[in-house]
Amino acid sequence: MPRRIVIQQSVMAADEKIAARIRKDLSQRGVLMLNLIGSPGAGKTALLESTLTGAPFRSVVLEGDVATSRDAERIARTGTLVIQINTKGGCHLEAHLVDKALEGLELDGVDVVFVENVGNLVCPAEFDLGEDHKVAVCSVPEGPDKPLKYPHLFSQADAVLLTKVDLLEHLDFDRDLFWGDVKDLNPRAQMLEVSALRGEGVPEWIAVVDRWIRGKRS
Amino acid sequence: MPRRIVIQQSVMAADEKIAARIRKDLSQRGVLMLNLIGSPGAGKTALLESTLTGAPFRSVVLEGDVATSRDAERIARTGTLVIQINTKGGCHLEAHLVDKALEGLELDGVDVVFVENVGNLVCPAEFDLGEDHKVAVCSVPEGPDKPLKYPHLFSQADAVLLTKVDLLEHLDFDRDLFWGDVKDLNPRAQMLEVSALRGEGVPEWIAVVDRWIRGKRS
Repeated sequence: MPRRIVIQQSVMAADEKIAARIRKDLSQRGVLMLNLIGSPGAGKTALLESTLTGAPFRSVVLEGDVATSRDAERIARTGTLVIQINTKGGCHLEAHLVDKALEGLELDGVDVVFVENVGNLVCPAEFDLGEDHKVAVCSVPEGPDKPLKYPHLFSQADAVLLTKVDLLEHLDFDRDLFWGDVKDLNPRAQMLEVSALRGEGVPEWIAVVDRWIRGKRS
Repeated sequence: MPRRIVIQQSVMAADEKIAARIRKDLSQRGVLMLNLIGSPGAGKTALLESTLTGAPFRSVVLEGDVATSRDAERIARTGTLVIQINTKGGCHLEAHLVDKALEGLELDGVDVVFVENVGNLVCPAEFDLGEDHKVAVCSVPEGPDKPLKYPHLFSQADAVLLTKVDLLEHLDFDRDLFWGDVKDLNPRAQMLEVSALRGEGVPEWIAVVDRWIRGKRS
């Protein structure tokens, strides 16, 4: 698949209708869309890099950032088609930005559109992009208190990924507290521990995405 | 100093005038106000805990969070007067919330008001709370690419603190890249590396705050 990086700018728009249209269009094509949300440095891009390298499905990536195309450059190195969306200060992606990025994108043969939202645990959870599932990405060094401190995302996400578990040996992180709070907020979410560095948990995460793709098409 | 925890709620208000009034009021009293901004889990509360324990100045703390009073409870254990501000979903503090928190607070004998903003590297940088200085707090596990990816905060902050430097030995973190980008964005900022866990860099940070307090009163 060709590699491409395009810089786009944010404009304000009411866009619930756009999100609904994106969801309908992608569903008709049998394409899954996932909205990855987490703090700056939670490991969203690293998770995508290891997912794209190991996955049996075909992906495209939309990279949301306040500034720079660094993450898109990282994704492009995996050989995956990636479009950078720069919000120019905006703290979250909105559906009209996703719509513009998807415009003219060749989706034949594509199984999944991964959207990496702007690094932010608060605002992105408020905006529907037309995705099938929100995925919460939280890293071990952020500490185990994040689900209750940022409940909106953790309540809504269909999967919660605890990343950088390779650092558990160096940090005093209470997993029982973390997962207990996640279960209290959202007992039906998929719950996974991953280390993109070591590859741990990545096959299980890929299997979840694969099930979601098949479920959407069945 | 007595310990107190109060939960407050966010209401929307245009509040540049409120910020200007807070700045004027605190200046007349010779009280410094600092606005600490960083990602969720960057170590803002831990930095405050070690600052409050070791500092020669008298402090009060305003704790901004989307939800819970966990951080205020941690600060209260240091014996410092703390007021929790819950934004109930809001992604940043605004001046009217700070104003309400300061209302009725006994500031005689207080040297500095520390405001810990909501964990978010984007939105809090946009809102003036009436502080003397914004302080950017970024942790080693977030990765060295954060200054260029979130340039607004790093350009504005009068101090940039790289936290959790005890994790440098376990992570591939390019300090030259991080500090080079900070210097490009903001050459006049105070630049400090700290480990709240080990106490490293905390005396130097306390010295910066102390200089700011003296500078304000001279």
